[in-house]
Amino acid sequence: MLARGDRLHAEGGGMSPDQMVIDGIGAEMFALIAKIYPICRSVTGDGVRQTLREVAAHIPLAIHDVPTGTPVFDWTIPREWNIRDAWIKDARGEKIVDFKRSNLHVMSYSVPVHRHMSLGELKQHIHTLPGQPDLIPYRTSFYSENWAFCMSHRQFEALRDEAYEVSIDSSLSDGHLTYGEYLHRGETQDEFLLSAHVCHPSLANDNCSGIALLAHLAKRLSGLRTRYSYRFLFAPATIGAITWLARNEGAVQRIKHGLVVSMVGDDGGPTYKKSRRGNALIDRAMVQSLKHSGLSPVIEEFSPYGYDERQYCSPGFNLPVGSFQRSKFGSIPQYHTSADNLDFVTPAALERSCRLIADAIAVVEGNRVFRNTVAKGEPQLGRRGLYGAIGGDKDAAAANMAMLWILNLSDGEHSLLDIAERANLPFAVIRRTAELLETHGLLKPVAGI
Amino acid sequence: MLARGDRLHAEGGGMSPDQMVIDGIGAEMFALIAKIYPICRSVTGDGVRQTLREVAAHIPLAIHDVPTGTPVFDWTIPREWNIRDAWIKDARGEKIVDFKRSNLHVMSYSVPVHRHMSLGELKQHIHTLPGQPDLIPYRTSFYSENWAFCMSHRQFEALRDEAYEVSIDSSLSDGHLTYGEYLHRGETQDEFLLSAHVCHPSLANDNCSGIALLAHLAKRLSGLRTRYSYRFLFAPATIGAITWLARNEGAVQRIKHGLVVSMVGDDGGPTYKKSRRGNALIDRAMVQSLKHSGLSPVIEEFSPYGYDERQYCSPGFNLPVGSFQRSKFGSIPQYHTSADNLDFVTPAALERSCRLIADAIAVVEGNRVFRNTVAKGEPQLGRRGLYGAIGGDKDAAAANMAMLWILNLSDGEHSLLDIAERANLPFAVIRRTAELLETHGLLKPVAGI
Amino acid sequence: MLARGDRLHAEGGGMSPDQMVIDGIGAEMFALIAKIYPICRSVTGDGVRQTLREVAAHIPLAIHDVPTGTPVFDWTIPREWNIRDAWIKDARGEKIVDFKRSNLHVMSYSVPVHRHMSLGELKQHIHTLPGQPDLIPYRTSFYSENWAFCMSHRQFEALRDEAYEVSIDSSLSDGHLTYGEYLHRGETQDEFLLSAHVCHPSLANDNCSGIALLAHLAKRLSGLRTRYSYRFLFAPATIGAITWLARNEGAVQRIKHGLVVSMVGDDGGPTYKKSRRGNALIDRAMVQSLKHSGLSPVIEEFSPYGYDERQYCSPGFNLPVGSFQRSKFGSIPQYHTSADNLDFVTPAALERSCRLIADAIAVVEGNRVFRNTVAKGEPQLGRRGLYGAIGGDKDAAAANMAMLWILNLSDGEHSLLDIAERANLPFAVIRRTAELLETHGLLKPVAGI
Repeated sequence: MLARGDRLHAEGGGMSPDQMVIDGIGAEMFALIAKIYPICRSVTGDGVRQTLREVAAHIPLAIHDVPTGTPVFDWTIPREWNIRDAWIKDARGEKIVDFKRSNLHVMSYSVPVHRHMSLGELKQHIHTLPGQPDLIPYRTSFYSENWAFCMSHRQFEALRDEAYEVSIDSSLSDGHLTYGEYLHRGETQDEFLLSAHVCHPSLANDNCSGIALLAHLAKRLSGLRTRYSYRFLFAPATIGAITWLARNEGAVQRIKHGLVVSMVGDDGGPTYKKSRRGNALIDRAMVQSLKHSGLSPVIEEFSPYGYDERQYCSPGFNLPVGSFQRSKFGSIPQYHTSADNLDFVTPAALERSCRLIADAIAVVEGNRVFRNTVAKGEPQLGRRGLYGAIGGDKDAAAANMAMLWILNLSDGEHSLLDIAERANLPFAVIRRTAELLETHGLLKPVAGI
Repeated sequence: MLARGDRLHAEGGGMSPDQMVIDGIGAEMFALIAKIYPICRSVTGDGVRQTLREVAAHIPLAIHDVPTGTPVFDWTIPREWNIRDAWIKDARGEKIVDFKRSNLHVMSYSVPVHRHMSLGELKQHIHTLPGQPDLIPYRTSFYSENWAFCMSHRQFEALRDEAYEVSIDSSLSDGHLTYGEYLHRGETQDEFLLSAHVCHPSLANDNCSGIALLAHLAKRLSGLRTRYSYRFLFAPATIGAITWLARNEGAVQRIKHGLVVSMVGDDGGPTYKKSRRGNALIDRAMVQSLKHSGLSPVIEEFSPYGYDERQYCSPGFNLPVGSFQRSKFGSIPQYHTSADNLDFVTPAALERSCRLIADAIAVVEGNRVFRNTVAKGEPQLGRRGLYGAIGGDKDAAAANMAMLWILNLSDGEHSLLDIAERANLPFAVIRRTAELLETHGLLKPVAGI
Repeated sequence: MLARGDRLHAEGGGMSPDQMVIDGIGAEMFALIAKIYPICRSVTGDGVRQTLREVAAHIPLAIHDVPTGTPVFDWTIPREWNIRDAWIKDARGEKIVDFKRSNLHVMSYSVPVHRHMSLGELKQHIHTLPGQPDLIPYRTSFYSENWAFCMSHRQFEALRDEAYEVSIDSSLSDGHLTYGEYLHRGETQDEFLLSAHVCHPSLANDNCSGIALLAHLAKRLSGLRTRYSYRFLFAPATIGAITWLARNEGAVQRIKHGLVVSMVGDDGGPTYKKSRRGNALIDRAMVQSLKHSGLSPVIEEFSPYGYDERQYCSPGFNLPVGSFQRSKFGSIPQYHTSADNLDFVTPAALERSCRLIADAIAVVEGNRVFRNTVAKGEPQLGRRGLYGAIGGDKDAAAANMAMLWILNLSDGEHSLLDIAERANLPFAVIRRTAELLETHGLLKPVAGI
């Protein structure tokens, strides 16, 4: 933990994070999703930059372009991929597949092609989902030169045995990998990292939702005075996170808490996957938030498969970064298909997701250690108006439990989060009650924590 | 643990605590309860002193009077409250409520009053239990000057809209807070604290039962030679325990084990709430006792709400003191009502409760660490007549398990309680078997433990 | 763990233990069981020596004879017992019980007798199983001079009230206790002990099966190059193990892993009882083996009742030796009766048991610690052909999990077994995948582990 001397001048005003207004954020997030959903993103290219510009309309985003060929740890920045159009025409010249109708129709990073070919040859370049015959799958080939179309299995089965003309008007050439970041400065240089991947095309939940949540959370947080600095990172999955880590290698140890945010627009879960450390403060804060949410959270131990927590939790960094989703990726039929569209995400679910993260932020911001000033025996709460003056009532107990737990455990060893966990009470109740007790001189903060 | 040099001359005779006779104690306890049940006790006053005199008829009790105004940690000894009579008369002058019929009718610490008033005004001073309309509630107002009557809700609803005359002939004036204690001296100055609250009026289980159990347990224990010294404390709840702690602050670290004893006369539970330490020897000893009782015990982790373990386990003391009850307070309909009367407690339940505590005492008294003198391979038990000489019998195993566990785990690191827990056998079986093995030279006690 | 310098020249060839061929071993084991089943074994005597000679037909077994009267820790080698014949004749001179038909008919260590007697007297010397009236029980009286016959309860109840002639042509005289051992030398002097008891007469599962498993496992292992040396011990139960420990007291600390093997020919369980240490590598290796066996294993904590793990795990040694059985001894009706015959054990079950032990051997042999050479971010697996080049497939994840877990946890702190446990994947999958990653330069072994 920090000594006071580490504190900086914070950017925000006087309000603390637990006073952050979340109401209405769902509608704003949904509006941003609707704007960026049609854009064809990939790990590189104009789609990413166009998306980041939309984010930058809400927060002062710093955009970073890293040239093709730049080594980043074990990887190298690939050539930039851009696509203008793509289609398949049947023997009568009719477009039976059209990129303009859905960018999922083209496998991401498909190399350019314009040829006539038989059905047999064409079929070698078509992906479908036989088990979900009405949906278009999402496919990529970032690191192997290839081209392909994706279509519904129903359409695939109806293809006539005739000649086809296919065209993918794409380019794969030296350029840049692009990511954006925004730093909200808090009282200290210790950072809370919030990271969303920006490389998926028209998939609303995965991950227009994460992009929108981070953009609007950052916007609202920017008005507040925080203890931690908050870094919002919008980067392509895997290589984007690796690139950011490689370019900020010396500074990553500032990250004291972190969340990878994706698939936060559906009403499933909520799902929290712990950091590799397993019992980091962010892990306990998210468990605290989800446990008292009234929902049915799924808490998972760390595993090395998932989103960019894979990179942040690689053994050379082992950062305290967990992963927050609503439905778990891969567990729902919409995942990586054309069914992950604007109908699948709702303002209400987005707002709820944001609130869950805000509650965890309130925990890490508000976690303190106190010492009870009347450690021998209980203090006389009644004399201070803190306790039901009429005793003997069976129900009086519940209301006073937070006070009793805080007084009993505030021995300089237990943090407010420790107490909330032990008392099985929401952190916010414990924190507010601790403030009340501090006001009455019954708690003294332990210096330097 | 103690070195031998710490041992004192013990008061008791040659018998050890596991030889304590419990038979018949239930009837004796019930007789004492019947005597003290009618007394109107409160946190101060003649009722407490009268109760302590009844206890002193059985054990040489030291009575302590602490003057009004004495500071005790965060508290101050309040004025002493005494009451002679109280009633409500209806318009016809008939006593519809009479303190002499039940001292629960008057809220404890009610200030004196004698006035005529309307029903409307009277109702401001009446407590009832709408959910249990036939019962009189128990109410107190120790630290806020007020007066009130308690009655059944059925009576309350039948009150006619007429003028009433109310009288509470009480006094609130400088005096004393009174508590009693008795110390049974054992071989060492290390203490086992047994504490019961003495401040509730006519409530048989809460806590005439605890007072009676401690009185008669002390009486029987006084004839025994014990390793620990046993301190029996009879004090008003909360401020009484705080007062005792404040006046014995330097000596409390002698307390190595402790139990708060209350509500031990019904046949519910048994309930044991662990000390704040959570794994103190008393916690393990009580779990051991209850687990092998044949009853369905409820073992609870420490929480800061309850009886005087709140004070003993306050962070500045953190004593190894747990709480023993049969039904858990507040969990039964009789709690703090006129239904907690002499019909609710039975000699059989009282005797059973005493036995459960005696079993835990036998654990802390008899817990030892031994070293197996034949540590390499098993000793040949058969040669010593310790083992079934005819092998191959499927059932022989069970009878020998205690011996095998003790020999295997007596490596100087495991106590008999450790072994009983691991073997899932009653401590008494393990202790007696260890004595047998010691007799045969197969165990050597580890010095100083 | 060992430094490289401790390594010896191993006996075996180039193949490692995970390449050991198990196929067909069940039939070979069964054949050996069929040969030794009829022999009348006891804790001493010709039966043991004859059995060890059959084992020695397969492996170069060293036979040790320890003279009667030799002290071994708390015990003394008893006189040697041999028996040539025994019978009971009825009044007409017909043999109604004949040792030649089943050696279970005579209580082991019965002293010689030849007398006429009444039914009443005879009954004092007969053991039966009233609850299993068709079976002959197995009974012993090693350390108390006595004689007895065992028969079915049905036969016992049909005995006529007449005169009987009984004869036990046995001898109890100075001789030897005999055990055999075979050491397969590995690269290090650290040993893996495999121990089977050889003192039970015609009981196929208990323990002809264990003898046969160890004999044929040793035979197959002898052709392999191993990291550990493997000691196979064939000794009478209890006193045999104690004798071996007493004669090898200085060397037992070489034992790094061990298994007591008994009752491995039925298709129950499998059952593994942990060593006294509870979390030794052998405990984890056996749990790993059984957990991924597709069977329904029973994992038990250590207890001091059982087979010779009692001696190896006595507190003066506390060796990491667990106990492996199929059905747990005593839990099945055949246990210690004539129903434990050749019909009760099968080649298939024997082979399966051997495979389970072989899998655990592969764990302790193959457990290594690596360090990921690309610790910051993930290595680019696709570039090395190690990863599905077409992304976005929902099912690609599963196949890659072993790689991801190894890379994530190979920080020099986690062994392959740690990783297998955490990933919940079979050790063999983890080990093979680690070898693949090592080949690609992505893992470096941590020196000296």
